[in-house]
Amino acid sequence: MASFSVPSPVPSPVEDAESLKKAFHGWGTDEKAVISVLAHRDAAHRQQIQQAYEDLYKENFIKRLESEISGDFERAVYRWIFSSVEREAIIAKSAFGKVINYRVIIETSCINSPNELLAVKQAYHARYKHSLEEDVASHTSGDFRKLLVGLVSTYRYDGDEVDARLAAVEAKTLHDVIKRKPLESEEAIRILTTRSKAQLKAIFNKYKDEHKISISKDLETEHPDEFASALRIVVRCISSPQRYFEKLLRVVLTKSNLDEDTLTRVIVTRAEKDLQVMKEMYEKRTNVSLEKAISNETSGHYKSFLLALVRN
Amino acid sequence: MASFSVPSPVPSPVEDAESLKKAFHGWGTDEKAVISVLAHRDAAHRQQIQQAYEDLYKENFIKRLESEISGDFERAVYRWIFSSVEREAIIAKSAFGKVINYRVIIETSCINSPNELLAVKQAYHARYKHSLEEDVASHTSGDFRKLLVGLVSTYRYDGDEVDARLAAVEAKTLHDVIKRKPLESEEAIRILTTRSKAQLKAIFNKYKDEHKISISKDLETEHPDEFASALRIVVRCISSPQRYFEKLLRVVLTKSNLDEDTLTRVIVTRAEKDLQVMKEMYEKRTNVSLEKAISNETSGHYKSFLLALVRN
Repeated sequence: MASFSVPSPVPSPVEDAESLKKAFHGWGTDEKAVISVLAHRDAAHRQQIQQAYEDLYKENFIKRLESEISGDFERAVYRWIFSSVEREAIIAKSAFGKVINYRVIIETSCINSPNELLAVKQAYHARYKHSLEEDVASHTSGDFRKLLVGLVSTYRYDGDEVDARLAAVEAKTLHDVIKRKPLESEEAIRILTTRSKAQLKAIFNKYKDEHKISISKDLETEHPDEFASALRIVVRCISSPQRYFEKLLRVVLTKSNLDEDTLTRVIVTRAEKDLQVMKEMYEKRTNVSLEKAISNETSGHYKSFLLALVRN
Repeated sequence: MASFSVPSPVPSPVEDAESLKKAFHGWGTDEKAVISVLAHRDAAHRQQIQQAYEDLYKENFIKRLESEISGDFERAVYRWIFSSVEREAIIAKSAFGKVINYRVIIETSCINSPNELLAVKQAYHARYKHSLEEDVASHTSGDFRKLLVGLVSTYRYDGDEVDARLAAVEAKTLHDVIKRKPLESEEAIRILTTRSKAQLKAIFNKYKDEHKISISKDLETEHPDEFASALRIVVRCISSPQRYFEKLLRVVLTKSNLDEDTLTRVIVTRAEKDLQVMKEMYEKRTNVSLEKAISNETSGHYKSFLLALVRN
């Protein structure tokens, strides 16, 4: 269920394109008008508006939009206007800065279904003329490379079938490698990058049943290093994307320096999917509504835009 | 161009199904009749015959066929009757014996295009209820695992664009790692498992230009071990599948113990694709026709079946 509201009846794409052209007109931009259109249309509508705009005004809609707005607001709108698949490809590409943002790569590869990930990789090929695998491999080395390249490459089986015997064997394998110092990465990477999500959930459950501690907690306790922290993100993204994102929102919204990129990413990628559920989880957990928390930490058009996506 | 002949006009699927039913009838099987139908129909026809047979006689065609014939002949027909994608999935699964047949896994992953490999992996999921990645990973370890899991997982970019500067850098990287003893596998695996085929061909060409020796030859000279031999198969499958298969046929057909599985695999997988080209290459190279060589080394219905696929 989408977390944002769409007016009923929704204006035609041509009407919306005209409103946006008017908002762009002259010196300065009417950002409120931009938000009132774009933050209240679903992906299909946004696509149609873009098409109608380009047919009517013979100019590239996205380039014009980028020239009209700026800063965090621009970056958020730029992510939002694309379809989910295109957006994920753009976000994955943005992970390759001076240092790779491995969290983004793990989210892309572990939260999407196998066929969604495939579609993202196809969009990545079309857009950047090379593969996501190449970019991940050439920005990493050692265990991080093995883990991240494995995660983005794999085409997991997507069925529900679970092999309980094998889950028990591999829960034990994971426990054994986690108890070694340093952690023995090879088998952990093999299991996490090749098994189906249903099988992995069975493994994680078996782990908790046997050892009275979740694998994520055990990793945290035994290994304070960054590689173990990446493994924990994998486990959490596969176990429960919603709990993962809800916690990420809590962390982002309570740090003294706001990480706008992460906040934007969670809101724009989930607004059309399950942000509504996370809002409820967030408020239950913190006694503050997500809307209120975002409102406290952000400002300007960026704030108005995020709130428009969160409020329904 | 197919290497086998299809009669014109081709009988209807119902006529063919009736001929096969007649061939199966009573004690013993008329193998000649089976060959005269199945070895002279393309994939679409074979599919239609199977359907017509099952509609007419309410029995599973493939099971019946398997019960009627045996040995190498059965195994060859069993591979042949499927579509190319299904067949590749079945062949990949057959690679996991007591020891993994890594050559088969390299062929599947490096000779198919990225989208063909994807289709094979989808057929593998549907047929075996788990992924090819899982099977490869759990049958291998160490460098072999990294290489083979990387090859089957990756979704390579399939465009023609080549980055010449990068090709030069990575040709040098490959040369450096090959000159180390033991060979430094990590960068070799990264390059071979992630770059596009067009880019890899540019890298191999650059390697030869710079060092006056092909990378395949250099690997052979510097490293007499099995891992280097696997890397050479990767290089050769990507550089030229036809030269690779033609040489494999030469090796198989001159060894004292015939490897029927490999011979069958090359003939049935290429008969509908490029076997005609390999036949010409083979005869040019050996002064013996492929038909004659197969005829000398095989016997019985197996021989008749292979010859029917090779002769046009």
